[in-house]
Amino acid sequence: MFFASDNGSACPPEVMAAVMAANEGYARGYGAETGMDRVRAALRDTFEAPEAAAYLVATGTAANALSLAVCCPPWGAVFCHRHAHIAEDECGAPEFFTNGAKLVLLDGAHGRMTPEGLTQALGTTGESGVHGVQRGMLSVTNLTEAGTAYSPAEIAALTAPARARGLPCHLDGARFANALVATGATPAEMTWRAGIDIVSFGGTKNGLMGVEAVVIFDPAKAWEFELRRKRAGHLFSKHRYLSAQMEAYLQDGLWLRLAAQANAMAARLADGIADLPGVTLRHPVQANILFPEWPAGTHARAEAAGAVYYRFPAPEGRERARLVTSWSTTGADVDAMIAALRP
Amino acid sequence: MFFASDNGSACPPEVMAAVMAANEGYARGYGAETGMDRVRAALRDTFEAPEAAAYLVATGTAANALSLAVCCPPWGAVFCHRHAHIAEDECGAPEFFTNGAKLVLLDGAHGRMTPEGLTQALGTTGESGVHGVQRGMLSVTNLTEAGTAYSPAEIAALTAPARARGLPCHLDGARFANALVATGATPAEMTWRAGIDIVSFGGTKNGLMGVEAVVIFDPAKAWEFELRRKRAGHLFSKHRYLSAQMEAYLQDGLWLRLAAQANAMAARLADGIADLPGVTLRHPVQANILFPEWPAGTHARAEAAGAVYYRFPAPEGRERARLVTSWSTTGADVDAMIAALRP
Amino acid sequence: MFFASDNGSACPPEVMAAVMAANEGYARGYGAETGMDRVRAALRDTFEAPEAAAYLVATGTAANALSLAVCCPPWGAVFCHRHAHIAEDECGAPEFFTNGAKLVLLDGAHGRMTPEGLTQALGTTGESGVHGVQRGMLSVTNLTEAGTAYSPAEIAALTAPARARGLPCHLDGARFANALVATGATPAEMTWRAGIDIVSFGGTKNGLMGVEAVVIFDPAKAWEFELRRKRAGHLFSKHRYLSAQMEAYLQDGLWLRLAAQANAMAARLADGIADLPGVTLRHPVQANILFPEWPAGTHARAEAAGAVYYRFPAPEGRERARLVTSWSTTGADVDAMIAALRP
Amino acid sequence: MFFASDNGSACPPEVMAAVMAANEGYARGYGAETGMDRVRAALRDTFEAPEAAAYLVATGTAANALSLAVCCPPWGAVFCHRHAHIAEDECGAPEFFTNGAKLVLLDGAHGRMTPEGLTQALGTTGESGVHGVQRGMLSVTNLTEAGTAYSPAEIAALTAPARARGLPCHLDGARFANALVATGATPAEMTWRAGIDIVSFGGTKNGLMGVEAVVIFDPAKAWEFELRRKRAGHLFSKHRYLSAQMEAYLQDGLWLRLAAQANAMAARLADGIADLPGVTLRHPVQANILFPEWPAGTHARAEAAGAVYYRFPAPEGRERARLVTSWSTTGADVDAMIAALRP
Repeated sequence: MFFASDNGSACPPEVMAAVMAANEGYARGYGAETGMDRVRAALRDTFEAPEAAAYLVATGTAANALSLAVCCPPWGAVFCHRHAHIAEDECGAPEFFTNGAKLVLLDGAHGRMTPEGLTQALGTTGESGVHGVQRGMLSVTNLTEAGTAYSPAEIAALTAPARARGLPCHLDGARFANALVATGATPAEMTWRAGIDIVSFGGTKNGLMGVEAVVIFDPAKAWEFELRRKRAGHLFSKHRYLSAQMEAYLQDGLWLRLAAQANAMAARLADGIADLPGVTLRHPVQANILFPEWPAGTHARAEAAGAVYYRFPAPEGRERARLVTSWSTTGADVDAMIAALRP
Repeated sequence: MFFASDNGSACPPEVMAAVMAANEGYARGYGAETGMDRVRAALRDTFEAPEAAAYLVATGTAANALSLAVCCPPWGAVFCHRHAHIAEDECGAPEFFTNGAKLVLLDGAHGRMTPEGLTQALGTTGESGVHGVQRGMLSVTNLTEAGTAYSPAEIAALTAPARARGLPCHLDGARFANALVATGATPAEMTWRAGIDIVSFGGTKNGLMGVEAVVIFDPAKAWEFELRRKRAGHLFSKHRYLSAQMEAYLQDGLWLRLAAQANAMAARLADGIADLPGVTLRHPVQANILFPEWPAGTHARAEAAGAVYYRFPAPEGRERARLVTSWSTTGADVDAMIAALRP
Repeated sequence: MFFASDNGSACPPEVMAAVMAANEGYARGYGAETGMDRVRAALRDTFEAPEAAAYLVATGTAANALSLAVCCPPWGAVFCHRHAHIAEDECGAPEFFTNGAKLVLLDGAHGRMTPEGLTQALGTTGESGVHGVQRGMLSVTNLTEAGTAYSPAEIAALTAPARARGLPCHLDGARFANALVATGATPAEMTWRAGIDIVSFGGTKNGLMGVEAVVIFDPAKAWEFELRRKRAGHLFSKHRYLSAQMEAYLQDGLWLRLAAQANAMAARLADGIADLPGVTLRHPVQANILFPEWPAGTHARAEAAGAVYYRFPAPEGRERARLVTSWSTTGADVDAMIAALRP
Repeated sequence: MFFASDNGSACPPEVMAAVMAANEGYARGYGAETGMDRVRAALRDTFEAPEAAAYLVATGTAANALSLAVCCPPWGAVFCHRHAHIAEDECGAPEFFTNGAKLVLLDGAHGRMTPEGLTQALGTTGESGVHGVQRGMLSVTNLTEAGTAYSPAEIAALTAPARARGLPCHLDGARFANALVATGATPAEMTWRAGIDIVSFGGTKNGLMGVEAVVIFDPAKAWEFELRRKRAGHLFSKHRYLSAQMEAYLQDGLWLRLAAQANAMAARLADGIADLPGVTLRHPVQANILFPEWPAGTHARAEAAGAVYYRFPAPEGRERARLVTSWSTTGADVDAMIAALRP
């Protein structure tokens, strides 16, 4: 009963088979291997973006921080949600990679920025000439850290005021597949058709050992990205092992099937705990993350049953938790968890 | 006949088996998995350094640049060989990670700095108060980029003047195993007993998919290293796949056997081409890299036979090459190469 | 009727006379001139801190950003008020000088942080290991951007929770003299006796051409400060012109007399407009800045009379302004302004 | 007998009178004062560049480092002489402001780069794809650190290969006036007509308290320069005191008269010591710096006579010195120095 994070899971057999298959003979490195040509083509197909540049890195922080660095000058403001991964979970990587850009944190229920909030922040930033930082870019996370999904229309409503100011728009898609499954949108609808310029396309949380793609719809930024990736130590010599994973991930919709399983298990879990006495959900469950709140004593019972997950402080008499399902979560896991939570 | 680089090789079966074995069930991430405990213990044993801190990253550039960043302030000078990997092959990663330290480039035959050259540079750096950069640290590469190996005594002769100035000493060991096999030294003899404070302990060029360890003999630098690693996007969530590789690498001396094979194949190749007419070696062949120079027309013949390697300009009538062997180079590869080079 | 900023004023005759007097013969530069010895002694006397290190720079942004850089690592959080100068008016200088530290913005009425707000932020920052930024330092502004003054006890109440976490505490004293005059505190009471480690001691807004001191109570940070100052281009070769100004400023209490005049003129202005119909003050007037709100049409009348000051949007039917007095504001200026504002 | 540096001098009366005159009434700040409009016009006239952007800062290091930062990306190489001020005397400011660009140091007699040396460095830099730093820019110093002057044709011969690669070209003109006087060239001939894109136009060493202009011939870089200047703390609030100095400096050719006096005194000194036994000059004396070498014992004699200057180590039996004249050096100073040196 592991619900601590989707990155606690192992990798599906298709991915491991691809890694094994890549372990054959000699190969050119640094992304010049033929496997990367196939990955590039597959990503362009996936995103219906035949001109897009696409690169692989091994961590979500690298994907995000490099994306920000090619979009935002050091004196720019990055508009993002207060609880975005780039704001809370990357130990200042955005500031490091951009040489000191400033994150402007927007509030918004359930991990979501609002167009109104963004418009207001855009209106009050960069209004004092050289004295303050300038408007730099927008970064939207989908799936959000609260487990909610923006629809393409909601993404477009956020990018619109940013684009009206001439700002590039980044999508942190560490759980992009989960967001697509949740909304039924296509990759193109969720990104460039909705005003997104650059995407961190997550693989690791959804079944890869450690591979994320960065898809750049404006190829003019490509060379700078390559230089920044190398300079940050994120260009792999034996790059074939990254491309093999990503190729398998994209093949025959594996990535979406993996996310569908994760989302389905979260829905099953949400259904199950909805019936438990005193359990509420702090955010809508739209994909593979749940934030339940329940009566004191529940943690102890769950732990005794072997459940692993993150706990948070709560007002007296209550307990809070974050439960994350993954491609490898089974119905039996879910049912056991529900049983453990039942008083 | 692939002699372009040791990072063009695949991984040995022991490593892949370990990766497969790690692909089981759920695990804590970010280096908190139990596999990393075993790796830490194995690295401490390997280096006879029970207090050492040890971390994994996925690229040599990350290992080096993070090592420099914890040793050298932004206003410091990093003393290194003119052709060091940190100077020529990392696109300015040292400057990026250190926030602008300055590499002071030392000459020296066959990729080797000399104590005299270092002493002179130490004497002329940082002598003008705040106006110039300050003495920061030493970085030694072993195996050198020229394929030569420093002995422990030679390392000690370099670290001595640096330590006399109170400077930390880094060893870039991207091909550390090859250097040990070449010299017969133990890891401890080659590092802390010779005055080294921090080591980039290479795995990738010697058979791993993409894993390097950083071994820090002074644990006081450990926490800063962890923060810098995270902030640079080099902390893996599914860290188990890194630790599995490193564990297999260190087990039963696999890493030294792999390097021994690479070195033996280079020796065999050096022997074979020594008999060819007009072939000379620009640097002594001590480990797994050769820099032959040969008559014009040889490249064409080798290429026709399917040989892959790096070529360099040479004075008229001659050609230059770099040939690198690896753990997977076979005697048959070598013999075929020699045959191809023979006029 | 210039109330736009205290840095729109010229310099008092004592300061200019000192600059002229310094323009004699040859002098050692870079702070090694004898005038700087006298300045250092005077600052130590002023702060009753015989061991303090003291340096001069020419802008408040330099003083602040260098102070932060010697106190906070790149992965640290700087706790400060949401409207602090370092947050809003330095175009990201703190992020640039610290190599990417993160400002954590605290709310608080009238430009003042509260111990409760700070304690809460301290409690929720740096609680997720390497994933988030670490607690770095506190920066307090006195006089605040809202024109209010913290008392020494209020400063101590803010530094206490920071110091309990081991964090250094900075005071941005761009208008330090105005704060002292407002509170009656001594420099020592307002700084190190209240838990402050490093002070940006402003001179420019209070009558100098462009000189600020940085006073560092812990001399262990001094050498790093000197290196960072030089590296940032803030070490003056003809440093004598800075030290001459600062020496005159500190002599016989000139600096406090200048601030006293500014504060008195603000009080007179506040008194005068208190009687005007429909005028309210958005923040208490404690030193030399006023934030009046008044009926629509007042701006036009003041402008017609020649008044210069900053205007801000206000809810319908009202207008907002910022009025700043300085050492050179006269009673006649104030009275003319009051007359101009009267309907 | 002060020959330590031209920045040890005071300021001429015209400059101080201008500062006094500026100390009148209220003024807009941050470069928006009317004086800066006149300075901008005067600089454009001086450089025959009606579209040029022009800014003031207070130190040469700021002028240089900001100029580099707007021309060179973090992954770029700055080609410069091994003994350039940016390489040796700015404590890594170029690396700090550019976020880690790499200085590629070129040798060349008498402080001068050669077109051949530059062409070779251009040919071997940036030739390994993302692995090495990219060609970034050229920085030429005129007057050189060795006291020699490039002619416009020599500048053009250096910028030609750089421009052929598309690289911007910077001129560090800390002693620009001395170089113009030495060569008889006009500012335009020495800069944009010779391929220079951006100039650090020195004032401090030639008689100002601390003012340097940056003249940018391509106005597209202007806004970025303004942001970087502010962010680095180099934008002065009471900017009028900078513009007043620069205005006086440019008026009626004062700046060239000051430099002419400095150069003439150096020539007189060179003539005088040419007759002394055993005195040689290590570099040609073309402007206001001399590097004599003389018999042991001369330092002691000069010092006894009150001479102040920098000394350097020399082979046995000899001594080396650097002597710098300035606008305030008199014939009497020179004659006394010659007398003191005579055995």
